[in-house]
Amino acid sequence: MEFFPHPDRDQIELASVLHALSDPQRLTIVRELAATEEPRACGSFALEVAKSTRTHHFRVLREAGVIRQYRDGTSRLSTLRREDLDARFPGLLNAVLQTAPVA
Amino acid sequence: MEFFPHPDRDQIELASVLHALSDPQRLTIVRELAATEEPRACGSFALEVAKSTRTHHFRVLREAGVIRQYRDGTSRLSTLRREDLDARFPGLLNAVLQTAPVA
Repeated sequence: MEFFPHPDRDQIELASVLHALSDPQRLTIVRELAATEEPRACGSFALEVAKSTRTHHFRVLREAGVIRQYRDGTSRLSTLRREDLDARFPGLLNAVLQTAPVA
Repeated sequence: MEFFPHPDRDQIELASVLHALSDPQRLTIVRELAATEEPRACGSFALEVAKSTRTHHFRVLREAGVIRQYRDGTSRLSTLRREDLDARFPGLLNAVLQTAPVA
């Protein structure tokens, strides 16, 4: 079931996606989501930020159309919208993901 | 001759480039620069923004390593750092450029 607002595929905008990806913590989230097919709980990411900042980062990614979030019991689960992003901006996500993360 | 600070190729960071590209006006600048081999004067771009905002946008692009700027007489000329970007982030610039601009 869907509890959070998400843009439809054709509403996803390039500038918003680039903005969502322009933060190192959000890039970490996207890289970790790209590495699995499984939904991930927000709390399971290795981010060294306060909970409120974490929530903010996930919201920016969701509102830009980069991730999908839904509630499962008391957890908030996230998945990468890879198909939507690949359809809208062919090659963009792969170009971002193949760049090595900053150490 | 070089009058403005620019990051070296290996100092160009993905998050900074994505941030620089995450603004519709800056995307317009990059698209226009990509369409020509010629250096372009800052004032020659069709941007509906104040001069100070225009200067800001060019500085963000330059400091991120997306464009190179130099002075030529009283003009400030810009070129796209396509080779540097392609070397650092293969496929990224093309993925961005092939997305149709928002009308």
